[in-house]
Amino acid sequence: MPDIFITNEGKRIQCDPGKDLLQVLLANGVFVDNPCNGKGSCGKCKIRLLQGQLPAVSETEKKLLKKEEMAAGVRLACLVVPEEDIEIETLQTERKHEILTAGYMPDFRMNPGISKKVLHIEKPTLENPSPYEDSLCHALGRKDLDWRLLQHLDTGEGKVTGVFNGTDLIGIETGDTTALIYGVAVDIGTTTVVTALIDLKTGDELASASMLNPQKKFGLDVLTRISYSLENPADGRKELQQTIVEGLNSLIEDMCSKAAVSRQNIYEISIAANCTMMHFLLGIDTAPIGRSPYAPVFVKAKNVMARDIGLQGATGARVYCLPSVSSYIGGDIVAGAYVCQLEKSRENLLFIDIGTNGEIVLAKNGRLMSCSCAAGPALEGMNISCGMRAAVGAIEDVAITDGGIELKVIGDEAPVGLCGSGILAVVKELLRIGLVKKNGSFIKKEELEETDYRYPLLRVDGKKREFILKDGQEPLGITQGDIRQVQLAKGAILSGFHALLRQAELHINQLDKVMIAGQFGAHLPADSLVGTEILPAEVTDKIHYVGNSSKTGAYMALMSVEVKQELEALAKQMDYMELGASAGYERLFAQCLQFEKAR
Amino acid sequence: MPDIFITNEGKRIQCDPGKDLLQVLLANGVFVDNPCNGKGSCGKCKIRLLQGQLPAVSETEKKLLKKEEMAAGVRLACLVVPEEDIEIETLQTERKHEILTAGYMPDFRMNPGISKKVLHIEKPTLENPSPYEDSLCHALGRKDLDWRLLQHLDTGEGKVTGVFNGTDLIGIETGDTTALIYGVAVDIGTTTVVTALIDLKTGDELASASMLNPQKKFGLDVLTRISYSLENPADGRKELQQTIVEGLNSLIEDMCSKAAVSRQNIYEISIAANCTMMHFLLGIDTAPIGRSPYAPVFVKAKNVMARDIGLQGATGARVYCLPSVSSYIGGDIVAGAYVCQLEKSRENLLFIDIGTNGEIVLAKNGRLMSCSCAAGPALEGMNISCGMRAAVGAIEDVAITDGGIELKVIGDEAPVGLCGSGILAVVKELLRIGLVKKNGSFIKKEELEETDYRYPLLRVDGKKREFILKDGQEPLGITQGDIRQVQLAKGAILSGFHALLRQAELHINQLDKVMIAGQFGAHLPADSLVGTEILPAEVTDKIHYVGNSSKTGAYMALMSVEVKQELEALAKQMDYMELGASAGYERLFAQCLQFEKAR
Repeated sequence: MPDIFITNEGKRIQCDPGKDLLQVLLANGVFVDNPCNGKGSCGKCKIRLLQGQLPAVSETEKKLLKKEEMAAGVRLACLVVPEEDIEIETLQTERKHEILTAGYMPDFRMNPGISKKVLHIEKPTLENPSPYEDSLCHALGRKDLDWRLLQHLDTGEGKVTGVFNGTDLIGIETGDTTALIYGVAVDIGTTTVVTALIDLKTGDELASASMLNPQKKFGLDVLTRISYSLENPADGRKELQQTIVEGLNSLIEDMCSKAAVSRQNIYEISIAANCTMMHFLLGIDTAPIGRSPYAPVFVKAKNVMARDIGLQGATGARVYCLPSVSSYIGGDIVAGAYVCQLEKSRENLLFIDIGTNGEIVLAKNGRLMSCSCAAGPALEGMNISCGMRAAVGAIEDVAITDGGIELKVIGDEAPVGLCGSGILAVVKELLRIGLVKKNGSFIKKEELEETDYRYPLLRVDGKKREFILKDGQEPLGITQGDIRQVQLAKGAILSGFHALLRQAELHINQLDKVMIAGQFGAHLPADSLVGTEILPAEVTDKIHYVGNSSKTGAYMALMSVEVKQELEALAKQMDYMELGASAGYERLFAQCLQFEKAR
Repeated sequence: MPDIFITNEGKRIQCDPGKDLLQVLLANGVFVDNPCNGKGSCGKCKIRLLQGQLPAVSETEKKLLKKEEMAAGVRLACLVVPEEDIEIETLQTERKHEILTAGYMPDFRMNPGISKKVLHIEKPTLENPSPYEDSLCHALGRKDLDWRLLQHLDTGEGKVTGVFNGTDLIGIETGDTTALIYGVAVDIGTTTVVTALIDLKTGDELASASMLNPQKKFGLDVLTRISYSLENPADGRKELQQTIVEGLNSLIEDMCSKAAVSRQNIYEISIAANCTMMHFLLGIDTAPIGRSPYAPVFVKAKNVMARDIGLQGATGARVYCLPSVSSYIGGDIVAGAYVCQLEKSRENLLFIDIGTNGEIVLAKNGRLMSCSCAAGPALEGMNISCGMRAAVGAIEDVAITDGGIELKVIGDEAPVGLCGSGILAVVKELLRIGLVKKNGSFIKKEELEETDYRYPLLRVDGKKREFILKDGQEPLGITQGDIRQVQLAKGAILSGFHALLRQAELHINQLDKVMIAGQFGAHLPADSLVGTEILPAEVTDKIHYVGNSSKTGAYMALMSVEVKQELEALAKQMDYMELGASAGYERLFAQCLQFEKAR
């Protein structure tokens, strides 16, 4: 078995014969970026060989790596299988991710499903040695209870506290514990997971915690993860479930420790997620979501015993899963539509959650229509040659003038790459200064005077053209391919936008508000959204940011049984339009790919 | 770590420092008899040291071992802690246990709770991508189903078969599987476990399997196991649960393989057991059963998901647990009373299940009263100096005449020890020939003429008297202590018998039938039961053997929902009398200890 020494981590690992280096590194907890999940297509899993030999550079690596990189010993981990002892260094470090957790929330009456009540249990005697179950039923005034409660009894005589979910008894605790009653609100996004620990008595958020979705190791987008589960029929589904459950458990533990709350006093976990994430969480087959006709296994809200899926909390803790509408309009969007009160408004409102999928809901006088557009991960900084997540070192804004290029970098550090808002800002600027044409191509360099300030910014290498964002030792550039990625995202979202308007027979000027949800959305300023023509210029002044409305919806469901009922009613009411199946969609999409306002 | 080589098994094991030899042997799967569970009181865990040294013989060993044994290197495994490498041999081998499985059963209408129905599930389309859950609910004509069904779907489009428990959907299978529908009936005794694989279409028993209750390693009787669970708060309860669950799973696997039935087509497991065994099975605290006022955690019938307790079967398989009456009148006795139709008869019937606990139910014109007597394990051949289980080599009957001693041995092999029926037969004979007095003591040897055929049968060693059952190289004898054990059992059962009659204001001659249940009972002939005065002579001709009525009750419950309802009603109706709390019981018990008919 070859030995691998990772110099920058000072770590030595062993390589199973025949396994590629990416697998070996990930299996040993060494971070390597791998958006395509080891398919040899993203070119991100770069490592540098320092000592020893690896098999010859493959054709795929030649396409994905620059000459200088190859000269410096850079290789793609997923494409090499070590045959002897080597020494390498990894080229990325996982950076702390900044995740937005605040957001808009309407007023509502707090009435959580979880409640507590002090009961008195009779002590058994020799004359009347009543079974504990019977004494408990007697104290509760009911005939039956869930037998599993009997597995985890406290001593339980005299004064005890019953924990209820609605009218279901879900726990018995010794003494009076009515003061300790907590819940957790969760938003599971494909990319990030956000949680909040809530005091159910007051509705106060006692702590919050978030992380990148640990399922990212199975692929960055929903479809790659579904493929992973399909390709590993033995336990892929279980792995995906355990990964998110373990992630959630660690966040819960983190919050409990911050707020000095016992896990045993968490009685409900309310979860908003897209439909695929919800299937993964419950260990339910996602294959039907990934293939036409995209019928999920379930969309209805679920009430689940936390321990049935391995989530930690009180022994009888429940999990509430918000309802979805369809495979591609999940509980996160139902939450968003609810939080924005789309169905209660008499206005014409458009709600967009911008992420790898752009989900759009149009409300016309209280009637809701939705669609989902495969935007791809470009707007999140993925599939972009120098893209990265919104972490320290990411360029989040760009201004290009004849005085030079101004970069705004997260954490005010040296720029390392471009996050989603950064790439949008660049494209907007490139369109504005005329370096990119209507069809998305760079202009020819010869069209520019050599004295033009833009002239040195465009580099031509054979047929390849690239915009130089930053020169020097660690250069950053925007390739034609990068522009295409943004263009595809723009085409997808804008065509969904227009298709919904058309379906509702609304003119764009009749829209009262455009509500941008999601953490990526919150980082995409109106001028970028409009400047890149993801949204039409007509809505510029109508844009509102509503924050993480998915988490807000989960919170509201946790704090009110009526909200749960209304969410479930809303999910049933919402129409879903499958863009691919709608008439004339392909033509609309082609039109929307154009940068209409480009010079 | 000392090495231990077990010569007769050709097995080498390692001994954790500080652990006694019994623990080490049991942990490594080496069979050593240990009725007292390593408490150093039964003297059964004998091994012989062949090579190496063990610490000096302790006082306890001196009391429990014979001089010849000590001279031959015999030691008690629970009392020695190896300090160096040794070579030993074990002195018992686990013998095949003969367990009676047939029995009496009344007529009843078969109407099992489990049924199957073919359903048609609509395929989703792009126009109508219905979630699978919704299509299923539609086909079933219902609003909801257990979400956990969705975790384990077959492909499930077109023709599928729904599996129902009553009206609950518990499984979905591809195609028409209505022909394959099985269940399992189980009797969990403290000592033995008996199972039968049943075709739910016909009620036929396709296979049966049985084993000694694998929990025996935690103690032979209920109280020792409860103590084990208490003394190991971290995971004792879980160990006890897992042990019985694994045992049942292996029996189920065995039967499935014999009958060529798939585990996946077992949908219900119906279980009769005493109250403590049922608590262990469900992983519920048994501590309250072991201490006054003996109030169990539950007695009511339970419907449990098999997978919630780790039992194997179809994914959605259910477990039905028969109801108990009290801590010491369990579902096995409710089953027996039901099978014997005690509550339907207008006669005066007495039902006795003879085992470690003797449970007695008296039916007077359909009114049922019950009590439980701590008979101890003597009648099962335990706590008897040369006692053993009813296995090959056990003496099961004895006749003593002036011509000598005639032994009937199970398997017609050389006698190794006495099983329950054998010890009863000996005591009956000793009473008959006048070697044991009213008070249970041996007569003094000097009261016999030296020419009396009985004279050589009584050996006196200081104050100790012993009856020589078999002389020679491997002698077998009955000690005064052995007689006391039987006497205690007799006193317990007979006093329970009389206490119930007194409570019901019935004279013994008014009894119409005495029904003996249980596998031990079935091996105890009427002349032994009456001859040892466990039962009064008046009932000699009224004794009926009903076999394993516990298993029969489990079978009937499996095959009929009405039987389940009637069992539950019966358990509620049955009165329970706590002997220890009843007036004048101690005096009655003292009277019943006497062998009234002894010379």
